[in-house]
Amino acid sequence: MSISSQTMRRLPVYLDYLKQLPRDTARISATAIASALELGDVQVRKDLASVSGAGKPRTGYDTAGLIQTLEDCLGCGEKRQAVIVGAGKLGRALLDYQGFETYGLSIEAAFDQSPDAVGVTDAGKRILPMAALEAFVQTHPIRIGILTVPADQAQQVCSRMCDCGIRAIWSFAPRRLHVPEGVLVQYENMAASLAVLSSHLAG
Amino acid sequence: MSISSQTMRRLPVYLDYLKQLPRDTARISATAIASALELGDVQVRKDLASVSGAGKPRTGYDTAGLIQTLEDCLGCGEKRQAVIVGAGKLGRALLDYQGFETYGLSIEAAFDQSPDAVGVTDAGKRILPMAALEAFVQTHPIRIGILTVPADQAQQVCSRMCDCGIRAIWSFAPRRLHVPEGVLVQYENMAASLAVLSSHLAG
Repeated sequence: MSISSQTMRRLPVYLDYLKQLPRDTARISATAIASALELGDVQVRKDLASVSGAGKPRTGYDTAGLIQTLEDCLGCGEKRQAVIVGAGKLGRALLDYQGFETYGLSIEAAFDQSPDAVGVTDAGKRILPMAALEAFVQTHPIRIGILTVPADQAQQVCSRMCDCGIRAIWSFAPRRLHVPEGVLVQYENMAASLAVLSSHLAG
Repeated sequence: MSISSQTMRRLPVYLDYLKQLPRDTARISATAIASALELGDVQVRKDLASVSGAGKPRTGYDTAGLIQTLEDCLGCGEKRQAVIVGAGKLGRALLDYQGFETYGLSIEAAFDQSPDAVGVTDAGKRILPMAALEAFVQTHPIRIGILTVPADQAQQVCSRMCDCGIRAIWSFAPRRLHVPEGVLVQYENMAASLAVLSSHLAG
């Protein structure tokens, strides 16, 4: 199954919409989903066809079945383990946030270079010294690294993550990263969103 | 000046790259920027032309001048005031995060429906009761609202924000929002990023 990353990014939006429908919504069409989410009809139809085949003419998809398919596709029932490097405010917030488990992501620990940061969070998650990163990743099934360090440390930490076997990096640092082939970087660029907001207010 | 939101989203990336160049980099070409950031040459050229005119043949742009232009364009020297609604872990992390001020955003206060959340953060920012939202927004030059409430409260809070004069909403809630004409919503969809990461690991 090969699904484009643009389609993958929209699947959680469809899933969230379907899950908040009244429980007696037995069937739903791509057109109804597109209309409710203000997305293009053709795009929604293609996205859903790529994960679940075409809906039936007129009646569309079985709602519960489509929810299940989307959850499977998003790995919601799995448990993918991640670590965070950078236990500042943002790193700690992500570490203690439980919403990611809905999407199959479990953040096992955070790492920080400051001895003051080392300890246990309110939610009982561990913050360990940076020196412990490699051993931890190599002794746990960690495949995802979350980067919440300042921009000027991002590449160095990213390289350490790749060297110890991490295959997917979720970066909150505003810096383009270089990774070996086979490693995916997903940027969460909050400054980009701020830029769009500012531009709207200036217009 | 009309710049597309796709271009606006890339400006902070260019700015960050230019700011970390050695201080003696007097001039830089669009081609060099594109190459360093692994972006398309044509795209970078068009983006920069739309904010700063074409670079000079061969030598490109004056680096300091381009940094200044990008900062002006992104409103870095301004102070745009925002409020946050939802003072959970993510909301509090954003409230105390100082990195947004680089981009001209100042978060003045947060609001929460839980009496337990009301108080003052470590960084000295106020968390106020929900009932105080309208009066606060109307007595301060607040134009931006940041939404960090659970998905099922997002629309209701969004409508209250719009009703009291907020013109741009930055939403971290995984829910499509309906807003009056003239209000911009920028979604920060972390679940979308997780979906792409998971898909990479499953592939």
